[in-house]
This record gives sequence, C-alpha cells and structure tokens, in this order.
Amino acid sequence: MKDYSQHPALKNIRVVLIETTHPGNIGAVARAMKNMGLSRLVLVKPKCFPSVEASTRASSAADILANASVVESLSEAVAGVQVVFGASARLRKVCWPQKSVRETGVLAVQTANAGGEVALVFGRESSGLTNEEMDACHYLSHIPTNPAYSSLNLAQAVQVFAYECLMATDLVNDQSSVGEKTLQKQTPLATAEQLEGFYQHLFQALQDIEFLDPAKNARFMRRMRRLFHRTQLDQKEVDILRGILTAAQRKAKQKGE
Amino acid sequence: MKDYSQHPALKNIRVVLIETTHPGNIGAVARAMKNMGLSRLVLVKPKCFPSVEASTRASSAADILANASVVESLSEAVAGVQVVFGASARLRKVCWPQKSVRETGVLAVQTANAGGEVALVFGRESSGLTNEEMDACHYLSHIPTNPAYSSLNLAQAVQVFAYECLMATDLVNDQSSVGEKTLQKQTPLATAEQLEGFYQHLFQALQDIEFLDPAKNARFMRRMRRLFHRTQLDQKEVDILRGILTAAQRKAKQKGE
Repeated sequence: MKDYSQHPALKNIRVVLIETTHPGNIGAVARAMKNMGLSRLVLVKPKCFPSVEASTRASSAADILANASVVESLSEAVAGVQVVFGASARLRKVCWPQKSVRETGVLAVQTANAGGEVALVFGRESSGLTNEEMDACHYLSHIPTNPAYSSLNLAQAVQVFAYECLMATDLVNDQSSVGEKTLQKQTPLATAEQLEGFYQHLFQALQDIEFLDPAKNARFMRRMRRLFHRTQLDQKEVDILRGILTAAQRKAKQKGE
Repeated sequence: MKDYSQHPALKNIRVVLIETTHPGNIGAVARAMKNMGLSRLVLVKPKCFPSVEASTRASSAADILANASVVESLSEAVAGVQVVFGASARLRKVCWPQKSVRETGVLAVQTANAGGEVALVFGRESSGLTNEEMDACHYLSHIPTNPAYSSLNLAQAVQVFAYECLMATDLVNDQSSVGEKTLQKQTPLATAEQLEGFYQHLFQALQDIEFLDPAKNARFMRRMRRLFHRTQLDQKEVDILRGILTAAQRKAKQKGE
C-alpha cells in the first residue's frame, strides 16, 4: 500500500513537542501524524516516554513512537531546520510574523519540496511556548477557533496542522506546484543554526560598535529576530550580512589599537 | 467573550455519533466541537453516557455534553435535517455522492446559513457506518489521508470536519480582517522615500567601514534592496537600522581622528 510519508514534501517536516505532560497525548499525536503522512517526531524533555499509554493511543502508529527522537532542548530539536513554525493562539498585541494553519501548510510543503527542513513546534499542554521558544520560531501559526473556547487539545492541534500539510501537497492536488519550481532554483534558505550564528554575531557587533545598551538587549534583539525571520534569509545572504558585521567590528577595533 | 456557536452557520450544524464505544472519545468530540464553534451533539445509543471519562476529556466543553441528546436511532438523530453527511473512508468502488471534508464544510455552512439543518454523522470506532446508515446520508464525506494508515481516531475526525466548517464561515474571514486592522494600527510601513534614505545610508556606511568594493556596488546594492524589500520594514525599524549604521560610521571615523 502506498505510503505518503516517503513523499519529500512530508518526509522533511518534523513535529516537535516540548515538555509534553500527558503520555496519551504523545501517542495520539503519533497517530494523527501517521494518518496524514508525517513521520518524524521529536520530543523535547517529555515527562514520561516511552509509556504504555502513549503506545495504546498511538494504535497502529507504533513506528512513529519507535523512531521518535528525545532531546534536551528546542535548539537540538530544530537543528538543520530552515523554517520553524510555532503553534500558538493568535497574539493580537504582538507584532510577530503570523500564519494561519492553512498558510503554514502551504509554506511548510513548499519549503520541504524545495529540499528544506521544516519544524512544527508545539508547546506544553498547560502553558504553550515560552518567549524564548517563540524567539526561535520564524512564524507563529494559529488555528482559527471559537473565541469562547480557543484551547485545543495537543493532539487535535497536531491533527489540524498535519491535515493542512497533506492538503498542501500534490498528493491531494496540484495547486502549489508552480511555487515549488520557483523555489527550487534559489539559494537554499539558511538553517536555524546559521541564523542563530548570525544573531549572536549581530549581538556582539552591536556591542563592539557601542550601539547596544545591554539593559535593553532582550527586547531589542527580539525585534531584530522578528525583522530578519520575516525575510527568510538564504545562506548567501547570511554570509553577506556577517561579512558586513565583521567589517564594522574590524573598524571598531582598529580605533582601540 | 464572543461565542461563534451562536452564529447561524454553526448553530444549525449538528454532530451525530453512532454507538460510540469509548466514553473518552465522546468527551474529546465535545471539546473539538466547542473549539470550532459547533454546539449540538446527538448520541445514538452510546455504550456509556454520561461518564466521568467523557467529562474529563471534554475539559471546558461540559456544556456540550450537558446539552447532548441521546436517541435510539439515526433516523431520530437526523429528524428535520436538510443535508446529512456521513463521514467515511473514501469508497473508490462505490458510486455514492462523495465530498471531501473541505467541500463538506463549504456545503454545510451554505446550507446552514440559508436556514437549513445539517448533520455530520460519524459511525462506530471499529466499523464505521452500516450500509443502511449510508443510505440515510446524502453525501459520504472523507478526510484525505495517508493510504498506509487511513483510520483516524473519532475525535480527530470530528476535529477536522468542525475545523473545515468554521473555515467555511465568514467568521474566519472577519477574523483575518481584524488581524489586518490590528497590523495597520502598528507602526506604519516605511515609505519609498524612507527606504531610499536607508539604502543611501547603507551604501555610505558600507564604504566607511571599508566593506564595499565600488566595482561591485550596483549588483551588491541590488541584492541588499531585494533582501530588505522582502521584509516590508516599518518606520521604526528603518530608524533602528539607520541608528546601527550611524554607530558603525562613528566608530569607523574615530579611527581616523
């Protein structure tokens, strides 16, 4: 029987669960993923894994659990990833790049089809993602809901995201094929590590040129991250921007000699 | 807080569960419905209802369970209904009117908006709908899935149907337009003149820090323009970036003093 999980568009999309409390949810997530052709599950510090409850709820998706990675941090979980989506309730007051789950599916599949790695990140059942975890996300993605009760169960949320990913593939229809071809010809997008390297470099360079007031660092750097996350920098662009930072630093240091 | 369940398009759509075995699934269905603004649950001969397990899994959707009808037959459950959709795996060999879940959401909401009653019918966890029950359905509706594992958990299936119903309403369009308005209230996007000012400043600063080889200027600056055009910089961001450039220039000039 045909297995969609081998299709490049789905194979390159990983689901990351952060500090999941209920093992049953992990199992239900595995099943929801497999139903939609996603296969790569990464668990950041799960409270209890593996567990009988997870396996029971996974039903015939035992292979997803067996192949799941367990890691210690979100940065490990998104190693090598080009686009990180953080599942989140809609934040009306925050100026963060936001996507609906439908838009997320389209962009995730376009990126994956072009050979990029994609992560869909889901926070804790009780409290979602921390601000630092949101900083690591290029987009915050929300599921439209009834404002009277907007909190989806974790596995239900994963189900809707995974469904929209499958719907965005040419397995279901051909709508995004043009976008894929356009993307394939371009320079690969920067990975999460390359972007982190750039932000660290930027942070240091801003200090070297005496621009940054350390008291305001966290908020300021968050703004810079939002700005550059929005652009989806490619690898060449990151190299260029870091070249500029290096030139500025060199000049700043010459002064002290 | 606004409650979408009072919207006619959603109020007239009922979810019918036939002979559900696991009470936890009934609770999870109630939650999935309420998240998406559906409120009317009809249970045909549930094995166990009410139950603690259903209430636990329903979380804050206790009202859906409290108002659920329990009936003896599908015909009672769909009394007064104009359009009955039966959730089913895709039946390739059967010549039945079929709809995808997305098409189902659109048609359900159109019918409900026009004052009609709609039923989404879900069969047993183990064996789905009987042939007689399918006969009572105007359409069979399927969720696209991975052929290697096409059997969704009951509550997950209801989640996707309810999500597509909400997505088919004008509530979601309204929601996204609110989002746009919210964005509009934030810092205005930079004008073309402000962007030109920034590019000129960047060009000069790159020379001051001895980064830019004038022989390559045109092509290089074009790349920078593309990069920053993509971000849709707002006015505050332009100010910040120019502040950084000024700091780098100041440091570079101090050297020569």
